[in-house]
Amino acid sequence: MSEVRQKGKLAKAASFQLTGISTEEKNAALERIAEELLNSAKEILQANEKDMEAGREKGLSEAILDRILLTEERIRGMAEGIRQIIALNDPVGEVLETIEKENGLLIERIRVPIGVVGMIYEARPNVTIDAASLALKTGNAIILRGSSSAKSSNLALVKMIHRALEKSAVPKDAVQLIEDTSRETARELFRLNDYLDVLIPRGGKNLIQTVVQESTVPVIETGAGNCHIYIDESADFTMAKEIVLNAKLQRPSVCNAAESLLIHPAWLERYGKDLLVSLHNQHVEIYGDDSVRGIFSQAKPATEEDWHTEYLGLAISVKAADGVEEAIDHINQYGTRHSEAIVTEDEENAALFLQKVDAASVYHNASTRFTDGFEFGYGAEIGISTQKLHARGPMGLPALTSSKFVIKGKGQIRP
Amino acid sequence: MSEVRQKGKLAKAASFQLTGISTEEKNAALERIAEELLNSAKEILQANEKDMEAGREKGLSEAILDRILLTEERIRGMAEGIRQIIALNDPVGEVLETIEKENGLLIERIRVPIGVVGMIYEARPNVTIDAASLALKTGNAIILRGSSSAKSSNLALVKMIHRALEKSAVPKDAVQLIEDTSRETARELFRLNDYLDVLIPRGGKNLIQTVVQESTVPVIETGAGNCHIYIDESADFTMAKEIVLNAKLQRPSVCNAAESLLIHPAWLERYGKDLLVSLHNQHVEIYGDDSVRGIFSQAKPATEEDWHTEYLGLAISVKAADGVEEAIDHINQYGTRHSEAIVTEDEENAALFLQKVDAASVYHNASTRFTDGFEFGYGAEIGISTQKLHARGPMGLPALTSSKFVIKGKGQIRP
Repeated sequence: MSEVRQKGKLAKAASFQLTGISTEEKNAALERIAEELLNSAKEILQANEKDMEAGREKGLSEAILDRILLTEERIRGMAEGIRQIIALNDPVGEVLETIEKENGLLIERIRVPIGVVGMIYEARPNVTIDAASLALKTGNAIILRGSSSAKSSNLALVKMIHRALEKSAVPKDAVQLIEDTSRETARELFRLNDYLDVLIPRGGKNLIQTVVQESTVPVIETGAGNCHIYIDESADFTMAKEIVLNAKLQRPSVCNAAESLLIHPAWLERYGKDLLVSLHNQHVEIYGDDSVRGIFSQAKPATEEDWHTEYLGLAISVKAADGVEEAIDHINQYGTRHSEAIVTEDEENAALFLQKVDAASVYHNASTRFTDGFEFGYGAEIGISTQKLHARGPMGLPALTSSKFVIKGKGQIRP
Repeated sequence: MSEVRQKGKLAKAASFQLTGISTEEKNAALERIAEELLNSAKEILQANEKDMEAGREKGLSEAILDRILLTEERIRGMAEGIRQIIALNDPVGEVLETIEKENGLLIERIRVPIGVVGMIYEARPNVTIDAASLALKTGNAIILRGSSSAKSSNLALVKMIHRALEKSAVPKDAVQLIEDTSRETARELFRLNDYLDVLIPRGGKNLIQTVVQESTVPVIETGAGNCHIYIDESADFTMAKEIVLNAKLQRPSVCNAAESLLIHPAWLERYGKDLLVSLHNQHVEIYGDDSVRGIFSQAKPATEEDWHTEYLGLAISVKAADGVEEAIDHINQYGTRHSEAIVTEDEENAALFLQKVDAASVYHNASTRFTDGFEFGYGAEIGISTQKLHARGPMGLPALTSSKFVIKGKGQIRP
């Protein structure tokens, strides 16, 4: 039996044991992990140094090396993250619906763990701790498949988790790491329907697209955000400018940052240059259509490709949109269903935009940067779903649960 | 462009229009369909007669021919079904969650249509009406891909729907029928991620497995039910017998019928023969393990295959299970996560069974036959989900919806 199937089987068996474990026992196990993590810092940092050396030898970029890097401070941050998860309410056991039938049957819909969660991710070894903690908190077993660039770190982290779980009520088989990081094991996970209930990719666009395109296991798609801001004719200049600068610049590398501006021609004529100069002064490269380049000559010509592009950096595409309907059509054509905003003083246009734009989060007069589990008050960062089934938008712990109908009778039969 | 992609594109465009259409307009369109259906009975029955002739020529079984057959009475039943859907509450627009942030942002999570639903199904032309009505009620566009054996009927039904929609606010492109019923078009639907938000198979086990195994579009898996009843040591004889006979015999061909009995050895010794004789007298073929055959010689020997088998007819597998834990393990190994029951007077064993059995519906002292959208009070029959994401168990209209965060601000930016 292959490593993936073997570990899948163990995780499945552990997931059945987990359904009998209480919130207190799960929290105690998480606290053990936090303690063991702090106690094992030296060993983990040594393992991480191996990954860093290998990465330097391979000539990985500074940005990627920084994602792989662990430090004492980062390890303390990871332990802090586990304790934040301990403090969250346990969603498992919540009664979602109660149906009392005339024949006396009591039907309750109750929140239960999903079972076995697969996580496939790149570089960052902190995802190992983060994902395992979230899974255990919600009573799920987890199969982790990290990248080769963080292999030693992930191995040391999962060994540490197993030591901690051995002192807890949670079976250590609940956390499985796939050690073989070849493409083959990823492909096996995509089709591990026998043991895996859901697969969550965390990483770049290519990883996510591969998982979506090749996986027969249900996927929760997270990530890509080609987010737009439409500035309507009646938009207040200062408000529009502040929202655009915030959404583009507060943290340009993340998925809820703005990547494209649509501007009503009248507003563009009146205020467009001021706005574009402000962006330009903050070193934002502007890719514009003809009307934009007509008022701001430093703008480069936008190609069809630009309307599709999530720059994740200091660049933005800008285009005139002749009214809210045209903006909606453009966004529904080019957007990635993540976060979309309108700035307007016209309530009717705002209502139309909020209703007709197809995205997980739609904003009126606010920055797209608010799309985030912590900002929404969920206290955890599982990811931001851009699909429509199961979970959409920032995901809290309930995204890692399913439900079950529990029916209690006194011998009722169907007439 | 292929038929599938072309119709996918039209359905997607229609789905955007549907977001602006009110409950009243959707209900009026459904009423138009009900009227047009009754008015077009003659034409539809003629088309159906063509399918019946072709089916007879091909030598299809009487059971399948009966599924294809439409009659005036069945058409009246279909119109009645549409009117029942009109009477249901529209879930779209429901506010699922309200978050007020300290900075004044108002975040609402609102129920919205999924977008474009794909339905791939066998024989029964009534699914065409049923699926289209449920989709339109929830503001979704739908792509229908029926089987070749009901091709003329489906074509006539969708033509009728288009005539009705032309007199309504709902765009007629919201309902698309794939006319080419070759395997190729099914395969294209499996990978139509650009236009299709979800794919729902309705039909036999092979169809469902093919869709699950080949589709990259998210699937809602429905159907297969290898349902067990575990009779515990303390089970009341009369109650156990009534539940078993009801679950096996009230309608043996459906997914929530019982297919396998697990019996505590002490109960088996005391009451087993009585129960098995009752089943035998109702012409149920019994496949038993050694202990079952020891008390009832007419039982045939059960093979490993029997524990996996959903007979969907007058047969049942029977086995001794030495206590609730053994029963739970057997069910979690062989069950299809549909409906599972325990009969016992022991509350502790009942609680353990309800918690640890992994299935959409778990029963204590009641027949598995209650797992049904109408029985649960949802008023519609979309199917019974046996998967864990998005929807699990009998699905009501909300299973055809997603949600969206709508955020209203006054210029808030992220600090």
